[in-house]
Amino acid sequence: MRQLARVLPKEDVIYLGDLARLPYGPKSDREIIRYSEQAVTFLKRQGIKFLVIACNSVSSIAYPELKKRFTLPMVGVIAPCVEEAFLATRAGRVGVIGTQATIRSRAYAKIMTRHDSRMRVFSKACPLFVSLVEEGWLNGTVTTRVARKYLMSLKRRGIDTLILGCTHYPPLAPTIRRVLGRGVRLIMSGDATAERVKHMLAERGLLRMGRHTGSIRCFVTDAPERFRVLGQRFLGPVIKRRVRSIREVRIDV
Amino acid sequence: MRQLARVLPKEDVIYLGDLARLPYGPKSDREIIRYSEQAVTFLKRQGIKFLVIACNSVSSIAYPELKKRFTLPMVGVIAPCVEEAFLATRAGRVGVIGTQATIRSRAYAKIMTRHDSRMRVFSKACPLFVSLVEEGWLNGTVTTRVARKYLMSLKRRGIDTLILGCTHYPPLAPTIRRVLGRGVRLIMSGDATAERVKHMLAERGLLRMGRHTGSIRCFVTDAPERFRVLGQRFLGPVIKRRVRSIREVRIDV
Repeated sequence: MRQLARVLPKEDVIYLGDLARLPYGPKSDREIIRYSEQAVTFLKRQGIKFLVIACNSVSSIAYPELKKRFTLPMVGVIAPCVEEAFLATRAGRVGVIGTQATIRSRAYAKIMTRHDSRMRVFSKACPLFVSLVEEGWLNGTVTTRVARKYLMSLKRRGIDTLILGCTHYPPLAPTIRRVLGRGVRLIMSGDATAERVKHMLAERGLLRMGRHTGSIRCFVTDAPERFRVLGQRFLGPVIKRRVRSIREVRIDV
Repeated sequence: MRQLARVLPKEDVIYLGDLARLPYGPKSDREIIRYSEQAVTFLKRQGIKFLVIACNSVSSIAYPELKKRFTLPMVGVIAPCVEEAFLATRAGRVGVIGTQATIRSRAYAKIMTRHDSRMRVFSKACPLFVSLVEEGWLNGTVTTRVARKYLMSLKRRGIDTLILGCTHYPPLAPTIRRVLGRGVRLIMSGDATAERVKHMLAERGLLRMGRHTGSIRCFVTDAPERFRVLGQRFLGPVIKRRVRSIREVRIDV
């Protein structure tokens, strides 16, 4: 949302965070699809013109189902990241880190090797990263050691590009960079996807014009207070100012 | 369940694991209560005679509501742990570790100081412990450092007893013991609660007699395969042999 709001300052953003049932990463495909369908049903009712699936687990597992079921232009985070990784890699050796669901789906590897069969994709699930970020442990010995434990196998494979395939990971980028060294380029789904959304809106004549500044309305399925705290950490002060409301809703009905 | 099945070998156990929506620890009180009520409604329909709330977060937050709403003898894990801690402590300085919800509720501290106002209770939420256990990182440098980071403040307070107030923590007991030293007695909710359940069943004339060996039937709301794997780790081979079935169910209806 931060990158989206920055790149598209005139658009109104309606955000839905399923705090009641997160994390999606360890859930089964079936459950991820069911919960995502509930979420999109809710958002459609809010009258959205375009859907951004800003979650790697949902994009990996549920995108085809959502595409089939809902008539709504939409984009996930996988394809934009893959495109950026293609532009970034020189050796054709790309790493992907994400939740168990994202890695199990092999979504990144499938798209990449379909585009170019010479690409080598190495992946690793890093479930502890989410907890570390939520705990606010972004640096320090513990976090560096966890990162080393997860990433050394990728480093040994000689990757020159790493896709941070989970929206929770960017705050860990400095630590990840320290562990992997400067030779490895990091791809963040937020930046890649925001640019893609802008492009798709323009293509479809859906971009909002005029002097208007876009508002942000947030819906969460649990704990709006916790969302306010995490929001500070993720959105930063500039984007946060555009948040008009944070409301609790039920979507599991 | 492991301790319960060991202490009560003749009872049939019906287990419900809400894998679709775990962890409960970071959720709001309202959501924990709503999900627990759905769980108990499901279990009542299975014809249970007694309810064990084998989760510290639910016991801390939802026990009073469940007690009010359902006419069913029940026990949570808080009271049995408190009792054991009373017996174990010499200095009257007790530590409690658990999820955010458990620690926020102050359930342990409230009961303890109500019984004896001289008791000093020091608590600490340790959310990363759950992820470490699910990742299978029970020993090693990372886990020891996380444990030290969480537990040093309790150690400095001079506790002589520590309540492991989360059903996920016992596999970390060896690491916790190493960090705190031998002078600190660890209280596990499983052992304490199983003994209490046995006592309560006997008191009410509900104990099953005869030569019969009890069966275990498991229901999960997601990912029965993942449950099978974790089951190995948590139940051990002896108790696992008594598991008759593992079935997926929906309770959020």
